Amino acid sequence: MWKIAVDVMGADHGAMPIVQGAIAAAKARECKVLLVGDEKEIVPVLAQSGVAYGENERVEVVHCSDYIRMEESATDALKRKDSSIYIATDLVRDGKADALVSPGHSGSTMSLATLRLGRIDGVSRPAICTLMPTITDKPSMILDAGANTDCKPEYLVEFAIMGYEYARSVMGYEKDSIRVGLLANGEEESKGNELTKATFALLKGYPFFKGNVEGNDIFNGSVDVIVCDGFSGNLVLKASEGVSSSISQILKQEIKSSPLRMLGGLLLKGAFANLKKKVDYAEYGGAPLLGVKQVAIISHGKSNARAIENAVYQALRACEAKVCERIAQAFASTKG
Amino acid sequence: MWKIAVDVMGADHGAMPIVQGAIAAAKARECKVLLVGDEKEIVPVLAQSGVAYGENERVEVVHCSDYIRMEESATDALKRKDSSIYIATDLVRDGKADALVSPGHSGSTMSLATLRLGRIDGVSRPAICTLMPTITDKPSMILDAGANTDCKPEYLVEFAIMGYEYARSVMGYEKDSIRVGLLANGEEESKGNELTKATFALLKGYPFFKGNVEGNDIFNGSVDVIVCDGFSGNLVLKASEGVSSSISQILKQEIKSSPLRMLGGLLLKGAFANLKKKVDYAEYGGAPLLGVKQVAIISHGKSNARAIENAVYQALRACEAKVCERIAQAFASTKG
Repeated sequence: MWKIAVDVMGADHGAMPIVQGAIAAAKARECKVLLVGDEKEIVPVLAQSGVAYGENERVEVVHCSDYIRMEESATDALKRKDSSIYIATDLVRDGKADALVSPGHSGSTMSLATLRLGRIDGVSRPAICTLMPTITDKPSMILDAGANTDCKPEYLVEFAIMGYEYARSVMGYEKDSIRVGLLANGEEESKGNELTKATFALLKGYPFFKGNVEGNDIFNGSVDVIVCDGFSGNLVLKASEGVSSSISQILKQEIKSSPLRMLGGLLLKGAFANLKKKVDYAEYGGAPLLGVKQVAIISHGKSNARAIENAVYQALRACEAKVCERIAQAFASTKG
Repeated sequence: MWKIAVDVMGADHGAMPIVQGAIAAAKARECKVLLVGDEKEIVPVLAQSGVAYGENERVEVVHCSDYIRMEESATDALKRKDSSIYIATDLVRDGKADALVSPGHSGSTMSLATLRLGRIDGVSRPAICTLMPTITDKPSMILDAGANTDCKPEYLVEFAIMGYEYARSVMGYEKDSIRVGLLANGEEESKGNELTKATFALLKGYPFFKGNVEGNDIFNGSVDVIVCDGFSGNLVLKASEGVSSSISQILKQEIKSSPLRMLGGLLLKGAFANLKKKVDYAEYGGAPLLGVKQVAIISHGKSNARAIENAVYQALRACEAKVCERIAQAFASTKG
């Protein structure tokens, strides 16, 4: 049975939604969750939900006294050996868990996952791979979504290989149909900045490479994997969240402005719910950190229970698909 | 009376919507439009609309035999002296018009505006300043939205000064309340890539500088002017357009799926129209190229008549506000 270590501390809304999401996953799927954090915060939630916990149960509590606060710097993470993220990471490192899920301090999660789990041979920089909604049934993947602000062309080539392997093994996209695009300011080969132009030249030889793609291609289903530096990835992610939340806010105000419109809003409740489900980050769970030797999923600090439940499922799929081994094989054959 | 030169050739949907938008503006406001392009394309539209044209009318046709196609390279633009964009730019250069509006080949428009109208003293690189909808009543401005893919920190400081002057003089934002942010992957000073970190240090001394802002801040009204390199600006712009159009597409499909929902959609027609008006690029007209010595507005290639009409109004506001002189003064006092 797969065992998933969940860091329950340091998220925006405290331990409760994290614990609730993890136990929902442990009930629904054949897996065990190791809840890492302050037992004073965890045990009451388990008691309230009537969930048995212990070494032989589906839910186990791993107590620790410290955690990294959101406002703290990631540089201390390696020294804080009693922190929840350090202990959760080491459970995976020591083979006591198969994957890590953390909605806590993402800088610390990245550092510890990179340094304690180790980089796959051939990977210069692990990258955050975020799933994005599209107008088709298949999400697209963007990486790097924020781990590396300044990148070299070779890093982006590595991101392309890792994204391709993730699309193939975890997402189950048909091998020969996977299209990887390079995020740029125009589709023509001549477009791009210094970084993307140099990357284009390196990616040209890969059969999965589709060429440059633009910001709107993230959502229109024209491409499966989008590679970029982590600075650009973060910008488009945040801008996309901003547009989506602004539209929802404007629409809510408009609907509230008259009784007839409120009736209209009621009739469209299901339509809005489906739209929300399609664009809600909670449905995607979290973002795998690709390039480390074991499975690590970085979740949003504001994750609700549904997001954490989905992040555990995502971790399970990554374990089942042996994505880390796949990536290691790809690098061994490409670079070896 | 202000005279606006409109390049009517080379846009995505031909000359008709461009001519229609320009004549609508000339009817509605005290101004004259000079329609630059092939008279065989322009005159039938004028005839159809019953619009008189000529030297002493509000509408004048400036015939030319050539134009730059979208798929052509901008490098030839300086040699194509009979092209509509060359002639339209030179009408402004020679004082026969006060401002340029072009929905045609944007690379050519930028090159010609920069080289024929000239850069303002102290400006290293002119920048495209795009207005963005926010959840408040005031749009925000992002620059550079695509003119300069690779930038130096000093360029971004210049963009900040130009954006501030535009917000103040053309948008009429209250001088002391204008907030300029630097687009980055986090709000803390420690966040950013090499370019933005170096820029942050330079911008720190300016009273209008608010610090780093993130992608979502473009839309939430927390800042008036957002500066970034043209590569990043283009990415967030295209991503934003993509999210907005995907949401609209998903919602349309959802509404069509049942008669009750279609009724709901009908009741919300006004709400959707208001939302569209708020996020529609056509309402903003076009993007001024700031840093050149005269007013130049770059419009979307897919501009409809409404977008061109608004672009002409934007040009008029820029002329009335003497934005080029204001920018020149700001550079003379800051850098002099």
